[in-house]
Formats: sequence, structure tokens, C-alpha cells
Amino acid sequence: MPGVLCTVAYDGTAFSGWARQPSARTVQGTLEAAIESMNGAPARTRGASRTDRGVHALGQRAAFDAAREIAAEGWAKGLNAALPEDVAVVAASECEAGYDPRFDTVDKTYRYLVLSSPLRDPLLRQRAWWVREALDARAMREAAELLVGRHDFRAFRAADDARENTVRTISSLAVERGYAGDPRVVVVTVTGDAFMKNMVRILTGTLVEVGAGRRAPGSVGALLGEAATRPDAGPTAPPEGLTLLEVRLGRPAADRA
Amino acid sequence: MPGVLCTVAYDGTAFSGWARQPSARTVQGTLEAAIESMNGAPARTRGASRTDRGVHALGQRAAFDAAREIAAEGWAKGLNAALPEDVAVVAASECEAGYDPRFDTVDKTYRYLVLSSPLRDPLLRQRAWWVREALDARAMREAAELLVGRHDFRAFRAADDARENTVRTISSLAVERGYAGDPRVVVVTVTGDAFMKNMVRILTGTLVEVGAGRRAPGSVGALLGEAATRPDAGPTAPPEGLTLLEVRLGRPAADRA
Repeated sequence: MPGVLCTVAYDGTAFSGWARQPSARTVQGTLEAAIESMNGAPARTRGASRTDRGVHALGQRAAFDAAREIAAEGWAKGLNAALPEDVAVVAASECEAGYDPRFDTVDKTYRYLVLSSPLRDPLLRQRAWWVREALDARAMREAAELLVGRHDFRAFRAADDARENTVRTISSLAVERGYAGDPRVVVVTVTGDAFMKNMVRILTGTLVEVGAGRRAPGSVGALLGEAATRPDAGPTAPPEGLTLLEVRLGRPAADRA
Repeated sequence: MPGVLCTVAYDGTAFSGWARQPSARTVQGTLEAAIESMNGAPARTRGASRTDRGVHALGQRAAFDAAREIAAEGWAKGLNAALPEDVAVVAASECEAGYDPRFDTVDKTYRYLVLSSPLRDPLLRQRAWWVREALDARAMREAAELLVGRHDFRAFRAADDARENTVRTISSLAVERGYAGDPRVVVVTVTGDAFMKNMVRILTGTLVEVGAGRRAPGSVGALLGEAATRPDAGPTAPPEGLTLLEVRLGRPAADRA
């Protein structure tokens, strides 16, 4: 029996993140319960990204081994019928049994929305970080350009992230004003080979300090390299502004459901 | 003491519509409770549009008479502190006491989002109407052009709407593909002098039938005029796709908070 590779979308608001936990509502746990209801046997998924509590996804990837002969399209439709309304399988394809997208990831793209407005917006409250200050998107873009490339990003990870290799490659880091016709929103879109814990949120927090004029655009270069530490970078932006847009995998992706 | 004119934004998901009801959570009732907490006296608001249960707003207008001397900006900030997170005052200005935006409306603009996709999207579930069929936006645009102008729109109102004058002017009815970079979403944006009950939702339901190929674009002209009846038009699109974007008022609008 082959494996099944799913593309998963979710509204992270009411989930305690992606990763399964014994007594919390997680995306992985919810997905595994839906698979089990079709599979007739316990299922374990292998996810590409461990998104945090409150973080959204349009293009998370998760693979599992099927215990029943069902075509990929049948899995997608059946899982969607079984899943609650804040999570959906938006595509599915066959893959080899045991396939783990985490070890086959070429790069990931995240989008972060910042609402810059003196007054809050009820329709964006679970989708954007509300910042009262005006933001200079050009200054943010100038700073972002300094962060693109292969660097030691140790200053841009959660203080409790203890991994040894802190060198990552950011291939693109774009800052644009305007989202769905709303010019108050600044959109940060980042693509990289791998991200450490909270890395995108700390990058965004640092860029927002630049946009608000509290940090010079040219100064962010000094946050790269072995000598920089977490307190040198900006705050961790809150999770609700973040969406995992896409995970590019090495395997041929003929995987639309 | 002058009046205060507010621009109000809300996520309609958890409200039983705009209009005050004795025992339901409504936007108007919620706003009036917040005003009362600042005013020290019961308050009655006059709203520009009675949006239905589940309908959103970015630019609803509501006026009330102040019982305390507070500058418009102070009202906006104070009300936002008192209001729950799914409703906010996004601008406020002084107006004459007793001012009613309903009798001073030049036109209103609504936006309707249709998600056309075989699989659902958890992040759009409270913002768009999910339609499984592919939609031909060009055919929808061709039909929309026939509806622009001053016409008898009696076929495009709820069956229980009994008002006599059913002539309205639609000054613009645009159909565009793409919302926030998502090409699966078709956006219908309509501006008119006044709308009858469910009119925007029936217009959208009819245009979606055209887009899905179940109704010829040129046939919608026959839905205008005295001879047409409600069953001739398409279904009433669900409320979650609809947002009141803007109410243009006759008074000079120097009313940013």
C-alpha cells in the first residue's frame, strides 16, 4: 500500500499549533483522527513544518501510510468531509510509503501581514499583527535586502532553540505595501531553505522596528554572523500574522487532487 | 451638544446582523452599550445600512447624540477600548444633533467574494461563498454590464420585501478574478444609490449562475422591469461573502478620527 502526500490548509486561530500533543487541539492530531476514521487503523502523519500555535497555513505538507486502497482524490474528498471547518486537505497525491516531506524540502515560503493603523480592524484581527505606528515600507525593503543570502541567523531564533547549525539561506525577502486592496497592510514574504524556531516572526519584528524608524535599515547587517545574539534583533512578532504559504519538495509534484 | 458620526467595521460572523434586537447579539446593540458606558446615559444610534446576520462591514456609518463633551477622536479611541474585538470604530467626526446618515446617503458600495474551487478553504470560510464549479468571470462581467443603470429591480429582492418603489440605480457592477493574490476568488463589487433586502446577494447569486454556465449572459436583461419576479432571478448568495465597503454621504466628509 502506498503513502499519501497531502497539502493542508488551516486557520490556526483555534489550534495549539501543528504538532500533536496529548491533550490539546492540534492540526496534526485533528488530521490523524480524520485519517483514522477512513483508514480503520491509527495513523501517523509526517509534516513538513511544525507551525506554532495561532499560525495559519495554505500549503503545509503532510504524508501518511494508507492502510486501505483509496485513490489520492478519494482521500482528499473523504478527509475534507471528516475534518472540522478550520482545516482542509486542498490536494493529495500518492507517494512512497514512509515518505517524509521534512527530509525532502527544497524551500518554504511564509507570508506575514502587518496592519499599520492607529485603530484596529476587526476583519484582520486573526490574520495580521496590529501595529499603531506608521511604517516606512521602503526602509523595511532596504533592510530586508541585507538579510537575503546564506548567513548565520543565530540572532533570529527563539532563545530556547539550541541547535548547533544556525546557518540558513534566505533566497527572497520581499516587503510590499497593500493586501487585498488595503494600503494599511504591509506584507512580508520570505522564502528560505529552512527556518529556525520563531525565525520568520523575529525577522518581521526586526523589520517593523526599521519601518517605525527605531532601527536604521543599514544596521541589520550587524545582526548576522556568529557574534550576534537574540537580544540584538527585534521582538518576536505575534503568530496570527503568519501563514505558511508553500513547501517546495524535491519529488516531482504532480500532486493536485 | 453635537452629534457624533462614526465609521464602523465589523466581522459579522458572530452577530445577528446590524439592527438592534431585544435578545440577540447585534452590532447596533453592542455599539450602543459601548456608547452608554462612555456617555453615562442610554444612547440610540442611527445606522446607514441594516446589514444582515453574518454580513461584514468595513465602512458602515452610524450617528448618535453625545451626552458628554468628548472630541470625536476621543469617542473613537474610547469606544474601541469598550467594544469587543469583532467590531471597531475606525473613524469619527462631529455632526449636527439628530443627523441620520440613512437620509443623507449618496451611494453605497458592497463587495462579494466567491471562492470557486473543488475543495474548501478554511481561511476563507467566513469571508467567501464556496462554489465548487469553475466560474467564467468574463461571462459574469458581460451579464453585469446589462444590470448597470436605473432599472426596476423587483426580481432582485427578498420575497418578503414589500416596498412599492422598486426602481434603483446601480452605477457600477464590477466582476474581477483574484483576491489577495488568490486567483480562485471572484470579486463582485457593486455601487448603487440604494439596495433592497438581499439585493446584492441575489445579484451575486444570479451572476454565479451565469459564471457556471447555467444561465446565458445576455438573458439577465430580461430580469429587469415590472414583469420580472423573484423566482426568475438566481439564488440568494449566503451572507458570509458580503462586506459593506463604503457609504458615501452628502455631508462634507472631513471625518477621519
